[in-house]
Amino acid sequence: MLQHIDHVGIACRSLDVAIERYGALFGVTVTSLEVNEAQGVREAMLALTPGQAAPLATYIQLLEPLADDTPVGKFLAKRGEGIHHIGYAVANVTEALATIGETGRVRLIDSKPRHGSMGASIAFLHPGDLGGVLTELVEPKAE
Amino acid sequence: MLQHIDHVGIACRSLDVAIERYGALFGVTVTSLEVNEAQGVREAMLALTPGQAAPLATYIQLLEPLADDTPVGKFLAKRGEGIHHIGYAVANVTEALATIGETGRVRLIDSKPRHGSMGASIAFLHPGDLGGVLTELVEPKAE
Repeated sequence: MLQHIDHVGIACRSLDVAIERYGALFGVTVTSLEVNEAQGVREAMLALTPGQAAPLATYIQLLEPLADDTPVGKFLAKRGEGIHHIGYAVANVTEALATIGETGRVRLIDSKPRHGSMGASIAFLHPGDLGGVLTELVEPKAE
Repeated sequence: MLQHIDHVGIACRSLDVAIERYGALFGVTVTSLEVNEAQGVREAMLALTPGQAAPLATYIQLLEPLADDTPVGKFLAKRGEGIHHIGYAVANVTEALATIGETGRVRLIDSKPRHGSMGASIAFLHPGDLGGVLTELVEPKAE
């Protein structure tokens, strides 16, 4: 069901500072910059450079909260800057949600897919049922 | 320099519980089970199933501390279960360390590569200089 790690979501206080850091240290640059009002974040996707052996784009997702009372704002207040969640690519997020939901073992934060970065359909699973890991399913936008 | 996300490292109190959970929810199974005395962990690598569009194995790495006074043991005591670090694939970890070290912007936890999972050469970068993200460089074992 999980095809590969699509992205790591990193909470930061300043998107500009974080973008500059990843560029200076690792040479990665911004592929997409978006504001997602529904999720309360300004976010940047930084595509890594796939090697020949693995022609796959995976992403560093930098997340700056739009306000203190957003999920990422609360995360920063409680935990400080750091890794916020992990996103796995799936072929079909609706089917994946149904299969996972049928197990009855994890609360679905999103019972239906919603809009994610770069046109993806996404859904989050509750970290309280996943060993503290906020887990995102990502169906990338069809080419 | 960073080619793709190689793995997400997840700290857990019980490797057996975590392995069972990832199998039941997502159908992922153990590819490699190792004890790394130097790092103070018992660990499992769970390979995701690459889709046709992306023929690349990425991994969930589950980490159980061998003792309370190990890095992962201390992490669990302070933060609880959850995402511990993120690992990026690089073509040559020695060269990547040199390039990153020359920036003078991040402390190298490992100034020389050491042994990682499944025969990889790895090195960690200090989270204090990386927005709270413990970052691992991974040069996978040559085929």
